[in-house]
This record gives sequence, C-alpha cells and structure tokens, in this order.
Amino acid sequence: MTNRTENKNCIVAQSGGPTAAINASLAGVIQGVFCSESFDTIYGSINGILGILNNRLMNLSEQSQNRPHFIETLKTSPAMYLGSCRYKLPDYKEDTEPYQKIFRLFEKMNISAFFYIGGNDSMDTVMKLGHYGKRIGSPISIIGIPKTIDNDLCITDHTPGYGSAAKFVASSLLEIAHDTFIYAVKSVTIVEIMGRDAGWLTAAAALARNDYNAAPHLIYLPEVAFSKETFLHDVEKLLTTKNNVIIAVSEGIRDEEGNYISSAAAAADTFGHSQLSGTGKALEYMIKDHIGVKVRSIELNVLQRCASHTASLTDLNESFQLGVKAVEGAEQGETMCMLTMHRTSQVPYCINIHFSSVDDIANQAKSIPREWINEAGNDVTPELLDYMRPLIQGEPDLKYQEGLPVYLPVDHLL
Amino acid sequence: MTNRTENKNCIVAQSGGPTAAINASLAGVIQGVFCSESFDTIYGSINGILGILNNRLMNLSEQSQNRPHFIETLKTSPAMYLGSCRYKLPDYKEDTEPYQKIFRLFEKMNISAFFYIGGNDSMDTVMKLGHYGKRIGSPISIIGIPKTIDNDLCITDHTPGYGSAAKFVASSLLEIAHDTFIYAVKSVTIVEIMGRDAGWLTAAAALARNDYNAAPHLIYLPEVAFSKETFLHDVEKLLTTKNNVIIAVSEGIRDEEGNYISSAAAAADTFGHSQLSGTGKALEYMIKDHIGVKVRSIELNVLQRCASHTASLTDLNESFQLGVKAVEGAEQGETMCMLTMHRTSQVPYCINIHFSSVDDIANQAKSIPREWINEAGNDVTPELLDYMRPLIQGEPDLKYQEGLPVYLPVDHLL
Repeated sequence: MTNRTENKNCIVAQSGGPTAAINASLAGVIQGVFCSESFDTIYGSINGILGILNNRLMNLSEQSQNRPHFIETLKTSPAMYLGSCRYKLPDYKEDTEPYQKIFRLFEKMNISAFFYIGGNDSMDTVMKLGHYGKRIGSPISIIGIPKTIDNDLCITDHTPGYGSAAKFVASSLLEIAHDTFIYAVKSVTIVEIMGRDAGWLTAAAALARNDYNAAPHLIYLPEVAFSKETFLHDVEKLLTTKNNVIIAVSEGIRDEEGNYISSAAAAADTFGHSQLSGTGKALEYMIKDHIGVKVRSIELNVLQRCASHTASLTDLNESFQLGVKAVEGAEQGETMCMLTMHRTSQVPYCINIHFSSVDDIANQAKSIPREWINEAGNDVTPELLDYMRPLIQGEPDLKYQEGLPVYLPVDHLL
Repeated sequence: MTNRTENKNCIVAQSGGPTAAINASLAGVIQGVFCSESFDTIYGSINGILGILNNRLMNLSEQSQNRPHFIETLKTSPAMYLGSCRYKLPDYKEDTEPYQKIFRLFEKMNISAFFYIGGNDSMDTVMKLGHYGKRIGSPISIIGIPKTIDNDLCITDHTPGYGSAAKFVASSLLEIAHDTFIYAVKSVTIVEIMGRDAGWLTAAAALARNDYNAAPHLIYLPEVAFSKETFLHDVEKLLTTKNNVIIAVSEGIRDEEGNYISSAAAAADTFGHSQLSGTGKALEYMIKDHIGVKVRSIELNVLQRCASHTASLTDLNESFQLGVKAVEGAEQGETMCMLTMHRTSQVPYCINIHFSSVDDIANQAKSIPREWINEAGNDVTPELLDYMRPLIQGEPDLKYQEGLPVYLPVDHLL
C-alpha cells in the first residue's frame, strides 16, 4: 500500500444544499490525501456526481499546490467550491448505464476511493454506488461525508454545517431582539427559519436567550402539530406582560391534518402565487386579523446556510476532521459507509468519529425527540439547549480584504 | 467654565430606526462627558425625546462607572441602548406645551446640553428645540448627531450607520453569490435592500464584486425610474451569457409615474394583503411570468441595520468620534447644529468634522447624484464605488461568550 508505484487516485464531490462548513470537509479530504501515502492525486468532480458523468473534473492536488493558502481559505469559504447537483441515481437493477459510466471512469483514472459530501439524498448516491460496486466486485471505497444545516441525518450526534447555521440563527435572533426592544409599543415579531421536516435549526433560536433577553418567547417546530387557536392564545397571553413578543417558527410547521401552514394560508390566493405566503407571513396575518397588534415577519433566507463570516469554529474543525478521517477510512478499506460523530462527553465537549453503514442513514431523517420539546409544544427543553450549545462555540479567524471576507474564487463554476 | 462648582449636566437620547453604529455615538458622548471639565452627570432619555416628556431618564455616568467595559461594549452593541421613538414635536407657534415641559426639566436638572442622535426626523426635533430655546433666550446647546443606514442626510459626506449596513449588504451579496453559483442551471436571484427614497444602501451591493464575482449583475435604484420592459430585456440579455444572474434592487424603486413597483404589483391582490408583495417579489413574478427561468427573491430584512457582528470598524470609530466631538461642541457653545463629516482626502481616506446648521439638514434628503449611476440606469459608476469603499473597512474586535457576541444588556427597555 505504501509503495509509490502502486499508488492510486481519488475523487471527491459535493452535493445538495450549501452550508458554511461543507468546504471545510472538502479541505479536510484534500489535506488527508496530502498526508496519505496511498493516494497520488485527488480530483474534484464539478457539480456533484454529474461531473463524473459529464467528464468535468478538476485536479485538486494541483490547485492546492499552486494557490497560496488554498486549504485554509477553502476551510472558511461558503457554499460549495465544487458546485452541487440535485441528481438522483436510478435503481441499478433498472438502469445500469450511469453506473457503468461512473465505474469506467474510476478505472480509467485509477481511482480507488470516491468521497461524496452531502446530506440525505447524497447518501442515497453513496449507498447505490456502494451496492453496485459490491455487485461487480469493485474494490473502490465509496464513502459519504455528512453535511446539512437541517441536522436530520440518523446515527450521527449532529451534522457538519448545522453548528454554523445554528450560530447564525442564534446571533440573528439576538440582534433582532435588540432591534425590536427599542420601541415602547406592543409588537409581535415572527422569525421564519429553515427546516422543512425537522426543527433543529429553529430550535437554535433559543440559544439567543441570556440574562436580559428571553426571546424567542415562543418556538414552533414541525415536530408538533400547529394549532392556530393555541398560537393566538399563547401570543395574547404574552402580550399582557410584555411589549415585544418574538416568535421563532420553522418553515415546515403543519396542522393536525399534516397540511403546511404556509400552503393553507396561500390557498386563499386565487392568483396561483402560492409562494407569496411563507409560514412567517401566514402567522403574521393570523395576528393581524385576530389580535390587531403591530406585527412583522422576517425570513432569515439563504444566509442561514452560507453566512461563512459567522461560522462556528467547532463546526469548521469537526467538518475538516471528518474529511481527513474519510481518507484514513479509505486507506483502511472502509466503504458503503458515512462518517458519524458520537458525543462521548458533554463537559468538556468531545466527539469520536465512526464509520457507520450508509444503509442505515440514506433516505431517513431524524426529528427532535418529543421529550426535548416542552409539553405545550411551544418551546424547547434545557436538554436540547445543552445539546446545541457546544456546536456553536468558537469564531474562525477570517481574513478580510477591502472590508470583506476573503473566500476562495469559484471561477471554474461560472 | 472649568470650575467644578459651576458644572452642569447633560442629556442624550436616540431616535429613529436602529443602526449598528448609533450606540457607538452614544458611547462617544459618554466618553466625551468623562473627559470634559464642564459636565458632571450625563443622563440618558429613554425612548428618545419621550423620555424627557415622560420623566424616564437614566444616569449614564453611574451606569458606565458601575459596569465593567461599559463604553467598549456599548460601542459594538446593536440597535439603541436608550430605545427609540417616532415622535414629532408640534410647531411651537401652535403648541408650546411639550417645549415648556422639556425646558422646565432641563432647568430643574441643571442641563446645559442636549444631544440627539438620529436621522432626518430627529434633526427636525433638534431644529425645533433649538429655535424654541433661542426664542426664550435659553443658553442650552441643542446638538444633533447623525445616524441612518440610508445615508441620505445633507451636507455630511456620509452618515454614521451607513458603512456598517453597507458592509453587511456587500458581504451578504458575496455570500449569496457563492450560494447561487453552485448549480449549473439558469437562475435569477433578486436581493431586495432597504432604502425607500435613496439608493445608497442598494448601491453598496456593488462592493461585493471582485476578481471572480461580477454580481450583482444589475442594480436598480430609486433615483432612476424603473421600466419593466427594460428590466426584462436586461435580464434576458444577461441570461444568454450567464447561468446565474443576481440583481440588487432597492425597496423604493418607482415607475415613470412615481408609483412604487411593490404596491403596483400588490394591487392585483384582491385580499387586501398589499404587504404580501415586496419589491423583490414583484420582480420575481415579472421574471416568472415573462422569462420562465428559476427565480428566487431574498429580502435582507432588519439585519441590514442591526447586524453588529459584522459592523464596519471605520463606521464605529467615526460614530464614536462624532459623539466625543459633540460634547466638545457643547462646551464651545455650539447649538442648533448637526455634526457633519467632510472628506478631505480619498487616499489615504480622511474626514474632518464640522458643526453645520441643522436648518439646512432637517427634513431634507440626499439622493445619489445621477452621474454616479450608469447611463442605462442599471448599475453604479466607479466614482460611487470609490466613495463607498473606505466606509466599510475594518472589523471590530467583538467579544464572544458561549458562541455569541456579547452586547450590552437592555433590561431597562423591557
């Protein structure tokens, strides 16, 4: 294995939605390959698995040797250096063509490991490639590296990217609270946070609370059925003792029947513009119509997943570590697996990294356990706060130029 | 004047909308009073001028002596430590009551200077109090300290708060560009930026451009009449050469007849929810209906004005300086004035501070000069970029605790 003449190459790709930490995992993989005695060259596949199918690869070994500070800058750059895709492989029992194309390229380029950094859907790709490879007796390691701001992957304690998004949500909530407290008039502020099926990111709003700030005063998650009546009652009650009520709500809340609150509200619009009314807007109108207090809704938008200027150092370091570890795993023959984090200690916070079967992870999702949500279903418990807090710790030492953070150029995507 | 027994007190208040730098000016005033030999105690009026009318004052000298790091933490805290108001004084020729109340309190508390930190409307208060004071022969200095993210105050080169908001807008645009470039499918992204009447803050989006990023590719400002046809043509043309078109648009753009684009679009909605459709949404629908490409609109929301975690150090330092200088002005007998900044050198960037008559500033607004906008009306010129760039330079050294920035508690507002 350590004989230079026998050395092999590897390919890495990124897929799914951006996070502030997915490039840190890519940086870790590149670093891992540099430290490895088993690999010569690492290639990046542009736009996920599509880059392999369409022959769009870049030589990352060369890139990182020729560009000063490549790995450090990559570690703190937002979104995806290699671009992304939303491509789902067909079942190989029905259509082997893309599989044959992929494994032919692997063979041609002397590839012995493929690393796929992504979320739920990307792990489906890892699983399918792994099973196909096994069937044809391929020795190539197929390894998934997790990322998602949604924090909804199974088995792993948490997912890379979540900590940075959670830090952005919590610090935004704190700043919005300062912004809101300045007027001595009754008001309600609704902050809509990403997370269609799981409330992990919305729950992070609770980290904004401190000695003087009790906001968000109410938190609504997809894990608990949303009732308009209870919601209005919650808000009215709070308004009797507070001037400014601040509410964190997941974009994915649903009523008893499982209907999204946003779409229910939008159905009233005959112009077919159902995307007009987000969940925050829907709650805003409920309050306007029934309570009649000053109300504003705020959508935190894509900055939740790409605001690298306020990433969590813990998150970046863990994401990088997973990348390095993935290369070690490939050297040791691991395949059809995803790297998972396991919390071995809470104080001091500590995680171990395992390789878990991707069959147990792909196409599954992890919600917040009901016991980490209060009985009324409008707040989180101290256990959930304890779980989240270590993940947002630390601030990366970003380089700035001309007043803006320095990120790695992405000309090759344009 | 320097005789301790003759010393006087002063009052400071904040008004209008928040900025990331308005507390830096407050910190400067407090620091100025500490350094002054003319003033004993500085009081803060809670919720702007309303605090004086409703007898809600806090002793800031005491606060800053009793709390460790009070002034430094205040300097980097978002929104308004003293709260705000949207109160307009009546014409004193019609109603002297509030004026009498205010000047009676000034006399009772031995006040010799009143500092009002705010924008356009707040300078109206400074002007009116100044004129009334002059009429009754009051020796009290009434001094305005500018702040607004809109950058639309006259005479001053720029306004405190603008640089930090501009830095947030530019860095968000850059991060959104990274987020957008990852997919190899045609798309349009519209970013809606604050500024109802002037396009200064929207123009700051252009600072996101660098060697690899040409976004925003189009910029629409309130200073130029918006034409739907030209807009669609602009976008279609760009889409022939680019995958991802990113557009910065001011919330305040209007058509030839002066109608807001947002309200024009919302008029189509018979449900009376005119606030549903912001300017970004209006442009989104134009593209959906006429071009049919993947399109998303993003509203940067209140974080533009309160994201202290990414404030401009230049802005914070200037805002602080203005506060200190205001106290010096009061000692020298300045009154009925607002502090203004005057750029004496571009490289190296340098400003001087003057005291300008508030009569020339209150109730007036400064737009972007037409020659700083390109002929087509869809971009800014290099002159405007040169003007803006120095204002976003430098990053404050924020303290963090438990993963979040440490801001000054505002219990007294709750």
